[in-house]
Amino acid sequence: MTTEPMTSDEMIQTCLEHTMFSWTATGKVSPLPIARAEGVYMYTPEGKRILDFNSQLMCVNVGHGHPKVIAAMKQAAEGLTYVFPGAATEPRARLAKRLAELCPGDIDTFFFTLSGAESNENAIKAARLFTGRFKILSSYRSYHGATNACMQLTGDPRRIHNEPGSPGFVHVMPPWPYDYSFGDDEEQITAQHLRYLEETIMYEGPETIAAMFVETVTGTNGILPPPKGWLQGLRALLDRYGILMVCDEVMCGWGRTGKLFAVEHYDVVPDILTMAKGLTSSYVPLGAMGVRRKIAEHFREHVFWGGLTYNAHAYACAVALAAIDVLVGEGMVENAAKQGAVMREEMDRLIAKHPSAREGRCIGLFGMMDVQKNAAGESIAPYNGTHPAMGRLAQFFRDEGLFTFVRWGSFMCNPPLCITEEQLREGFAIIDRGLDITDEVYEG
Amino acid sequence: MTTEPMTSDEMIQTCLEHTMFSWTATGKVSPLPIARAEGVYMYTPEGKRILDFNSQLMCVNVGHGHPKVIAAMKQAAEGLTYVFPGAATEPRARLAKRLAELCPGDIDTFFFTLSGAESNENAIKAARLFTGRFKILSSYRSYHGATNACMQLTGDPRRIHNEPGSPGFVHVMPPWPYDYSFGDDEEQITAQHLRYLEETIMYEGPETIAAMFVETVTGTNGILPPPKGWLQGLRALLDRYGILMVCDEVMCGWGRTGKLFAVEHYDVVPDILTMAKGLTSSYVPLGAMGVRRKIAEHFREHVFWGGLTYNAHAYACAVALAAIDVLVGEGMVENAAKQGAVMREEMDRLIAKHPSAREGRCIGLFGMMDVQKNAAGESIAPYNGTHPAMGRLAQFFRDEGLFTFVRWGSFMCNPPLCITEEQLREGFAIIDRGLDITDEVYEG
Repeated sequence: MTTEPMTSDEMIQTCLEHTMFSWTATGKVSPLPIARAEGVYMYTPEGKRILDFNSQLMCVNVGHGHPKVIAAMKQAAEGLTYVFPGAATEPRARLAKRLAELCPGDIDTFFFTLSGAESNENAIKAARLFTGRFKILSSYRSYHGATNACMQLTGDPRRIHNEPGSPGFVHVMPPWPYDYSFGDDEEQITAQHLRYLEETIMYEGPETIAAMFVETVTGTNGILPPPKGWLQGLRALLDRYGILMVCDEVMCGWGRTGKLFAVEHYDVVPDILTMAKGLTSSYVPLGAMGVRRKIAEHFREHVFWGGLTYNAHAYACAVALAAIDVLVGEGMVENAAKQGAVMREEMDRLIAKHPSAREGRCIGLFGMMDVQKNAAGESIAPYNGTHPAMGRLAQFFRDEGLFTFVRWGSFMCNPPLCITEEQLREGFAIIDRGLDITDEVYEG
Repeated sequence: MTTEPMTSDEMIQTCLEHTMFSWTATGKVSPLPIARAEGVYMYTPEGKRILDFNSQLMCVNVGHGHPKVIAAMKQAAEGLTYVFPGAATEPRARLAKRLAELCPGDIDTFFFTLSGAESNENAIKAARLFTGRFKILSSYRSYHGATNACMQLTGDPRRIHNEPGSPGFVHVMPPWPYDYSFGDDEEQITAQHLRYLEETIMYEGPETIAAMFVETVTGTNGILPPPKGWLQGLRALLDRYGILMVCDEVMCGWGRTGKLFAVEHYDVVPDILTMAKGLTSSYVPLGAMGVRRKIAEHFREHVFWGGLTYNAHAYACAVALAAIDVLVGEGMVENAAKQGAVMREEMDRLIAKHPSAREGRCIGLFGMMDVQKNAAGESIAPYNGTHPAMGRLAQFFRDEGLFTFVRWGSFMCNPPLCITEEQLREGFAIIDRGLDITDEVYEG
């Protein structure tokens, strides 16, 4: 581009005139103009600095504009960029080998896609073909992608607008409902919920169920780590009925929770692990479905009825290798764990100070805060709804240069994993001032 | 990668051990090791040169390793690579504006995806949301992608292995069946087929049908340009019932047929145009759904219930701009038309010479040849089947360094659009010798 750089107004007007925006009506969107980004900061064309407190869509794990990733992109552009999926290439081979080293248990074989949705689409195929069964269990309060089948896998109101969709998807309540409970303590919740799940499996017919999909740690719909013992119990339950366990680590994988993969917190090896986002830190699109050896062996004999033009895209594989090297080599997973403790401290501080701050949940740098309207802990906004004070809070964050997502009665805290303690506290200082807005409508 | 380059064996063994391959059983695949590619040629690590006669998956339209695209990739890596889909960025704005200039009619608003499948997934959403109707018509002998819903849109045997799939998809016969006909000449075929289509619409209920999806020129399943007047007649028929026309130009768009978009041959403006592949010539993944103004206006007022992490990926948009500049600026669309005449001549020469050569179809550089087993014109291989001689032909092409796809009783002729006459004749010289193999089993 040799022409003059665009101003904010030009970017905004052209994008509004010639592009559609996701999950919204174009007439209601107010696009954020961004010209460049570095580390945990983004900049408007006019130079306003914005702290990225959501790693965009929880995906720029190593931070923006990392020099080593940029250098790798430039080098990879000189090499083989794309060949058809039946080719063996060096980036494909090296990335698959690296993932086999890094993934838990005997997950050592990978099918490369472009996104989390496509990884889940292929996991649906693989689970059905492997088991010969059709139904898929998943959770309300989950997000698995926006393609037709992934929308049905999803338990989030966006699904409803994509119905009727693909058949065979059955939803169960996750172990942590919002304002009721499966028990008095974590042990009881786990035991009762697994009993509820087993009864659901009975009613659906275990011999008809190919897999259960779970976000190892629920993402968009709450940042909810499972209760103690639940994932291990789920593993045993599914094994009992020959149902595959698919862990969607599109958001929670690649260091987000302070471990490379979230399943490592729970000592569980899923049958299929799906990933995207942090795999390349989004510098280029890439997703993957990782499968355990028994599934890989099955597809040595049996046809895998899936494919895509950009399967194992050589350039994307090369960039993924560099992004992983940075993430692992620069200790960002450990930093996520370390800064997660700072986030916990900051959240606790804000909860003690602000009556409208109900709860903060975080595991590593995967965090969310809930806003309440009264001492009974009622959410300021209903499910799938909003409240004017939350709109004002969102505007305050934007004005103050804090980028995050405000949704219903909550807001996200998911900065890049390279964030320093100082930068993290800088973000919470803005949140601290923002919560004065919701405190004003707190009813006591 | 500072380590030693891999040998062919290392690439192959590692890919077979740690990756899954599409549409096949890993135990049956023999991956082609590729180390680099330039123009119309690919090279193995040991330096064997292979002529790319399918642009990989009909997608590397400008050819491999184009210096201007590589330069743009390196420059774009220094700029903004990725921000969330609610951002306005310069690459997004510039690409959308450029597409609005290039696309037919009033198709001037774009939703960016990563692939053809995702573009079609979003076109299904857009058509249903815009019309308030649910059913989608499409053709047998079509390919629209491998996600669950796109598989159901597809009329190709791969669909069957992905059933039961998403509901609401109704398949009709395309105007050119293989060995029977809707009439004696093109005019009659068009008239009768449209009558057949209208009756199908009646039986399905026009008020239930959101859209009909067509590949403007059928790709994988035959390279079949529609008969004279058919696309215009289809446009009028669908308009009569308020059914949207979606043209899938994932394969046939971006110069492949000798026009920038295949609909330009037929003077028709679809309501939605889907694209991918040639949009970036596959250097990085990018797809798009283009919509006419009436649909764009609808989504100014109404929510579009779709989205993806990598919507309007800034780096991919920047690379697309460069790939388009090369395609358009270096006259490759005109070259496709020009070399298409050479392909026609070569196909006719081979048909005259080889009794087993039944037919060659091409429009621009979008071509396919059919192999027959007898003078009655019976295909050497049945639908979804094969013949040993076709296996030997495929092996011959591979040994002789011609990359293409041999499927059932046909093989593909879809070289990059930068191919010279000499290179094209070089490919047909290999095909000429290869057809001796199928001539041997020709029954007369």
